[in-house]
Amino acid sequence: MAVSAYPRCPSTRRRGETLEHAIFDAVVEQLQTVGFAGLTMEGVAGCARTGKAALYRRWPCKEDLVVDALHHALPSLADLPDHGNTRDDLLDLLRRVAAMVNSPTGCALQSLMAEIDRDRPFARIVHERVLEPRKRMFLTVLRRGVDRGEVRPDAASLLVAEVGPAMVVQRFLVDGAPVSDAYVEAVVDDLVMPLLRPSRST
Amino acid sequence: MAVSAYPRCPSTRRRGETLEHAIFDAVVEQLQTVGFAGLTMEGVAGCARTGKAALYRRWPCKEDLVVDALHHALPSLADLPDHGNTRDDLLDLLRRVAAMVNSPTGCALQSLMAEIDRDRPFARIVHERVLEPRKRMFLTVLRRGVDRGEVRPDAASLLVAEVGPAMVVQRFLVDGAPVSDAYVEAVVDDLVMPLLRPSRST
Repeated sequence: MAVSAYPRCPSTRRRGETLEHAIFDAVVEQLQTVGFAGLTMEGVAGCARTGKAALYRRWPCKEDLVVDALHHALPSLADLPDHGNTRDDLLDLLRRVAAMVNSPTGCALQSLMAEIDRDRPFARIVHERVLEPRKRMFLTVLRRGVDRGEVRPDAASLLVAEVGPAMVVQRFLVDGAPVSDAYVEAVVDDLVMPLLRPSRST
Repeated sequence: MAVSAYPRCPSTRRRGETLEHAIFDAVVEQLQTVGFAGLTMEGVAGCARTGKAALYRRWPCKEDLVVDALHHALPSLADLPDHGNTRDDLLDLLRRVAAMVNSPTGCALQSLMAEIDRDRPFARIVHERVLEPRKRMFLTVLRRGVDRGEVRPDAASLLVAEVGPAMVVQRFLVDGAPVSDAYVEAVVDDLVMPLLRPSRST
């Protein structure tokens, strides 16, 4: 079923972004169906309907390919709009995390993290290139809030930055079902925002 | 390596609790090494050095056996000591969660949750019998705090009850390394306790 969900590939030669997207989608699909251990360059090439050479030209090994595919599939760092207030900045970011865990990428990342626990160097690359930048996005939003006077300076910490993503990921892990927007709003309004406020006297 | 870590089984016949513990340890080990999909009654029996009949006598299928093994391996509900204050109650509980994720059971549960996402009825059983009771333990501690006047009544919610476990699990998932006691203390003191306090004027 998952395979047939891929668009039939026209016989015209795909180049650049189109081919890259097909390859990255194929990586996510392979992670979900056969896991990281079972993922091969051949399998990804077949699923993306391209040749192995196209893959090896750019990625010397599957580890590099997987890291790039996840980096592509996860919410972008490049566009972090300033909504003018911390609540809306946080909601925007946390909705992206929820959209990610609700997507095939979320399942793929979950399988990957469960598998690579024993494979430390690769785990560190995923951490540094994929997970750590997302954490810094939340920290950036908190620091913006400090500049606006909305956030206590000592609340702009990595610990506080992790609360939103941790709650969304936990909800996904425990309940499996799609994480609802009502839940995302409750996390921001009932957990994160109360931790940030300069004082309760407001 | 993992197999040799099991104590050599004496030729005397084990009964009751001793045998049960050996079986549950074998389930955890099998979950880590071959995953839920690969786990069989035969494999568990072999690993626990007992016969299949001993397993089938009590558990009609592997799903029942796995749920019981996790229930056994996870922190007990039965002994929830009252330390007289919410901070120490929370620290005690969260240290148990950290000890769990740092143990083989944590790895086993992580693999299991990644695998059974597609197998809904069993996931629901794990949820109801294994995960939900742990969440209620935290809620119980928060309600005790309300009775003591330490916790705002509206902070004794399932959402707040999830913050500690979510942060510990997230830390384990992202960093892989053992979750430190310093981290557990920071979660309690810098995140959970500030969410509970009746007012900041104190």
